[in-house]
Amino acid sequence: MPITANQINRKSWLDVPENSDFPIQNIPFGVFLTQKDEVTIGTRIGDYAIDLGAFQRLNYFEGIDLTDDMFMQDTLNDFISDGKKTWRLVRNRIASVFDAENPLLRDNKNHRNQIIFNVADVEMQLPVLIGDYTDFYSSKEHATNVGKMFRDPANALLPNWLHIPVGYHGRSSSIIPSGVPVHRPMGQTLPEGATSPVFGPSRFIDFELETAFITTDANLLGENIPVHEAEEYIFGMVLLNDWSARDIQKWEYVPLGPFLAKNFASSISPWIITMDALEPFRTKGPQQDPAPLPYLQQKGKHAFDIHLEVFIQPENAHPTLVTASNFKYMYWTMSQQLAHHTSNGCRVNSGDMMGSGTISGPVPNSFGSMLELTWGGKNPIQLNDGSERKFINDYDTVIIKGFAFNNEVRIGFGEVASKLLPPFVRK
Amino acid sequence: MPITANQINRKSWLDVPENSDFPIQNIPFGVFLTQKDEVTIGTRIGDYAIDLGAFQRLNYFEGIDLTDDMFMQDTLNDFISDGKKTWRLVRNRIASVFDAENPLLRDNKNHRNQIIFNVADVEMQLPVLIGDYTDFYSSKEHATNVGKMFRDPANALLPNWLHIPVGYHGRSSSIIPSGVPVHRPMGQTLPEGATSPVFGPSRFIDFELETAFITTDANLLGENIPVHEAEEYIFGMVLLNDWSARDIQKWEYVPLGPFLAKNFASSISPWIITMDALEPFRTKGPQQDPAPLPYLQQKGKHAFDIHLEVFIQPENAHPTLVTASNFKYMYWTMSQQLAHHTSNGCRVNSGDMMGSGTISGPVPNSFGSMLELTWGGKNPIQLNDGSERKFINDYDTVIIKGFAFNNEVRIGFGEVASKLLPPFVRK
Repeated sequence: MPITANQINRKSWLDVPENSDFPIQNIPFGVFLTQKDEVTIGTRIGDYAIDLGAFQRLNYFEGIDLTDDMFMQDTLNDFISDGKKTWRLVRNRIASVFDAENPLLRDNKNHRNQIIFNVADVEMQLPVLIGDYTDFYSSKEHATNVGKMFRDPANALLPNWLHIPVGYHGRSSSIIPSGVPVHRPMGQTLPEGATSPVFGPSRFIDFELETAFITTDANLLGENIPVHEAEEYIFGMVLLNDWSARDIQKWEYVPLGPFLAKNFASSISPWIITMDALEPFRTKGPQQDPAPLPYLQQKGKHAFDIHLEVFIQPENAHPTLVTASNFKYMYWTMSQQLAHHTSNGCRVNSGDMMGSGTISGPVPNSFGSMLELTWGGKNPIQLNDGSERKFINDYDTVIIKGFAFNNEVRIGFGEVASKLLPPFVRK
Repeated sequence: MPITANQINRKSWLDVPENSDFPIQNIPFGVFLTQKDEVTIGTRIGDYAIDLGAFQRLNYFEGIDLTDDMFMQDTLNDFISDGKKTWRLVRNRIASVFDAENPLLRDNKNHRNQIIFNVADVEMQLPVLIGDYTDFYSSKEHATNVGKMFRDPANALLPNWLHIPVGYHGRSSSIIPSGVPVHRPMGQTLPEGATSPVFGPSRFIDFELETAFITTDANLLGENIPVHEAEEYIFGMVLLNDWSARDIQKWEYVPLGPFLAKNFASSISPWIITMDALEPFRTKGPQQDPAPLPYLQQKGKHAFDIHLEVFIQPENAHPTLVTASNFKYMYWTMSQQLAHHTSNGCRVNSGDMMGSGTISGPVPNSFGSMLELTWGGKNPIQLNDGSERKFINDYDTVIIKGFAFNNEVRIGFGEVASKLLPPFVRK
């Protein structure tokens, strides 16, 4: 089926600001709360939020085989379950209805009033019920940087790293959408030089610049997904700030991996950008040497050229860009991650989320965490307001932006922005 | 509120075989499919499965504040959300209706036919929708054994182990109830002496003898649960076989912990035994030295005396008991685990599951895994049929049983039994 929604020459009758992340070629999916406190599935064009529940109720999906309440739900899980053919039909239809030449909805004020809101007037929710969350560790630069600092500079990369898209399980219950503040976690740490641990507020709160992909139902328990089929099961992507407490992590993570250092919060951008919308930005990833085992080998372009930026904004100050990276630097692709994840028969469901791991580029100002940018706190970063940061301070807002562009179109993610608050006080 | 359901002198008008795990003092909760393909929440007395959906519809919960369809659901999550007061009212009512002296249902054949089934005629399902699954590592004997084998015999226990109930996130999507067979996973391993990994069927499939507890909604994101309140949020317990692929684990687990070595299957017993039913079996756990940090300190009895047994049953042969352990050996208690898990504000929801970690006792025939019982395959186990096992063979069934007893009552879990099949063949 052609992805007519991607037609470059198409314009919408809705106004789209220059350099918007959300031209009519994007058509992302999300869930929002209207001012009437109604939850609906929606999409976005320019600065307009489009209520797809009302769109469906008013019959604009006529002829597409959908359950009656497909878009009148508080998660996208059922829609994602319907599979790629339905995703395309729906996206193509939305593009067609909002096409500048199509009078159907454009000239129906009553319907427009029911369907179209200003994005400023809706409150974005988590787009999916995330059954399971996995986080990978697929940037060679990040793994090398961490290995140098935490372990052995001469053997920074562990022996399995070039053979396995290393990953671990995260916590679904602590995934929150952009805008929800995060409390500085309390935790157990071993202070430098001490022989016994202490309990108190974490002192080294960090962001991790990541993307994540959302899957559809992919397999039976026991069944694997071959690497060449894996992309069929990826619905789309979001930006992910995988908040990390470095002092808690350092003390707890041996031998079973990060736990409380990570599961106090993971923030995601609220609009899922479909893989179809990102199709023009396919590119080749880094050369993989040694060659992966056959179950991970793939030909062609399976990386994506997506620019990523992180800003720190202190309370009452302007944001400072602290790093700029790109998703194309990742050593392991999303399809390799999904093929590896299911190679043992692990079941993957609609709405599962898989994080890329911190996306560090080759040069220091493209590193994806404060840990790497300040080299463990040794080289503080200067912000625009003259203050310095080794890690994240209380009341700082961390903002991650992501966008892909070429000469013809810009497809963006919007942002994930979250403020760090002091430790929670129990009432 | 008194737990009248626990009254020792109570007998049921339903027949309960001698040494049954399910006397009228147990009253566990589960979900089953009837022969009419209807799913319902239920309980069990002796060898009878009791349809609590029908029980509610026929008004036997009259006077208890419950939503109309509380027990006509396919998971216990909503009931568990209602909290301990409701759990007790419901359990007390069931005990009262099935009391030998109570004629209400006993003498109503029409109602009995709608409510009571033979357990052999129903198919047990997963009792809860498990949002997040965490597995702890709280047996000192197990951690010491593994440390000796995998790392350094002289420093088997890592420095953090005596201070932290070490845990990690598991995969919810691969949790299955007793009876569902498990396929031997494929995976990447580094053969002894090799310098490059290979991909193929795991050669070292192991069980892990565990229990797990199921929580109710416990906190807001950011909020902790103090250790002295933690038991209020634990609904009950199940048996858990945390299937493990030792060769995959050894190669993949550094530095982020076990992943594909674990997430191909985790099998649980289908009846949740309430903490109220287990109350008579409260006991003191091992002395904790050094004293834990204040947020983990507790007084009184917070361990539970629960006998645990594991059997291996080859195809067409009788089961052989391979180990007998006890839940009371665990160094860290469930309340310490839950307090630690939420000490950073990690949110815990109704239906979340937390595994104990492998429950190894102090002597070799109480070890909780083949890895320990055969000391890494060096000392094979002899089965009753004359065959030997280093790990689990295809077509072996692994059976875990658990029960608590004193002079007055026996409260059991039934079993979790699952057969290992050869690798899945994709059609």
